[in-house]
Amino acid sequence: MKKNTKVNAAILIIGNEILSGRTQDTNTSTLATWLNSIGVKVNEVRVIPDLEDVIVDTLNVLRKENDYVFTTGGIGPTHDDITAQSVAKAFGLKYEIHKEAYKILEAYYKSGEFNEGRQKMVWMPRNAQLILNPTSGAPGFSIDNVFCLPGVPSILRSMLGGLKNKIIGGEPILSHTISLKTVESEIANSLSQVQEQNKDVEIGSYPFFHAGKLGVSIVLRSENQSKIDNCNNQILEFIKDKKIEVVDR
Amino acid sequence: MKKNTKVNAAILIIGNEILSGRTQDTNTSTLATWLNSIGVKVNEVRVIPDLEDVIVDTLNVLRKENDYVFTTGGIGPTHDDITAQSVAKAFGLKYEIHKEAYKILEAYYKSGEFNEGRQKMVWMPRNAQLILNPTSGAPGFSIDNVFCLPGVPSILRSMLGGLKNKIIGGEPILSHTISLKTVESEIANSLSQVQEQNKDVEIGSYPFFHAGKLGVSIVLRSENQSKIDNCNNQILEFIKDKKIEVVDR
Repeated sequence: MKKNTKVNAAILIIGNEILSGRTQDTNTSTLATWLNSIGVKVNEVRVIPDLEDVIVDTLNVLRKENDYVFTTGGIGPTHDDITAQSVAKAFGLKYEIHKEAYKILEAYYKSGEFNEGRQKMVWMPRNAQLILNPTSGAPGFSIDNVFCLPGVPSILRSMLGGLKNKIIGGEPILSHTISLKTVESEIANSLSQVQEQNKDVEIGSYPFFHAGKLGVSIVLRSENQSKIDNCNNQILEFIKDKKIEVVDR
Repeated sequence: MKKNTKVNAAILIIGNEILSGRTQDTNTSTLATWLNSIGVKVNEVRVIPDLEDVIVDTLNVLRKENDYVFTTGGIGPTHDDITAQSVAKAFGLKYEIHKEAYKILEAYYKSGEFNEGRQKMVWMPRNAQLILNPTSGAPGFSIDNVFCLPGVPSILRSMLGGLKNKIIGGEPILSHTISLKTVESEIANSLSQVQEQNKDVEIGSYPFFHAGKLGVSIVLRSENQSKIDNCNNQILEFIKDKKIEVVDR
């Protein structure tokens, strides 16, 4: 299959606990790092509450604007887990027992433990494709370009391996970081000129204060290594003139 | 002044470094926790790239749908810092040197150090109100209901104190957490019934795996303490029947 050069995704974090500040989201960073490594660029992240209408409306916007949408959260057994029913509604699909998921959880739990609460986790949109869960049994699922994953970070991470063949990425997005012993304002103009001359390399500038060191990390991102190298050389040139040191971070 | 009971906000995280997974956002949790403490509920968070059109369009949606919008990131001296010019464009305001900000930074830096890069940080939408920065000098700003803060977490945190009189919150959102030695599926049905009987308390259920303990935290949130207490009592009742222990987290 010929690869698209640009493949985009949105991440939709579903959960009141993130919006209240109680829980620090880490799934965005996990998913974004993994997606980048397989050539998928994250366009947008949204965090929304556990409200059906909001989930339905947001999903219907994101799934049309992006090649892929990844949701996290809301697929457990409790009353506030409403992702599966909301996805069914967004797609106009029946919300029903998924036979394969039922078999998986029936086998996973000891006899008598596959109770009503747990059975809620096999209700999915009709014709959902399962995403297997090596950690805690209950599968995630996908419908069309929407992939629904759990909110618990360790379980989410364990499920990414099973997604590899389902996501067709574009050219991997390469990146190179140069960390400098300087402050942003010293390099702002020179860096602007480099950006001007290298419009298709994304150049980010990030001050850091870390372990007693103070400096700036410049991150170069592109699908094309030689463009990154070219940019890198121009930066090395101007910092030489300015007598700015390269440092480890 | 009579307080509104419900005051809402959106958080807009501006920065390619979050979307690439390179940087773990922590500002959402900082802002959301602080906003909750002053009676402002976060409706939505979006993370978007350093692209002017995207910032303008997103801001124009969020500022109409929410009482307040807080942006983070993109107010430094480098070429990828385009929040101030984008906010000016969103509001149709002139983007110009802010005289008070100029004076602040002129005094902050040693003679000769207030260079062109640093001077970029005093360009703001016309009539912006400054948000003072006790950490690193360069102020944030607000226009109407939009408050623009820096991306560096320690600097952002240091600026929240100066916002207190500018944000009028509603009733503080109270919360109570009960942690249980159980799994979600054991309590899902009973918890559903409690939610059914207490529709205006937000009940969240969050499994945890922490320091060798496994359990579920139930979080009750409302502006009304007696409603939380009532809900709490109903939960204590059903866990007594089920012989489920309350644990510390």
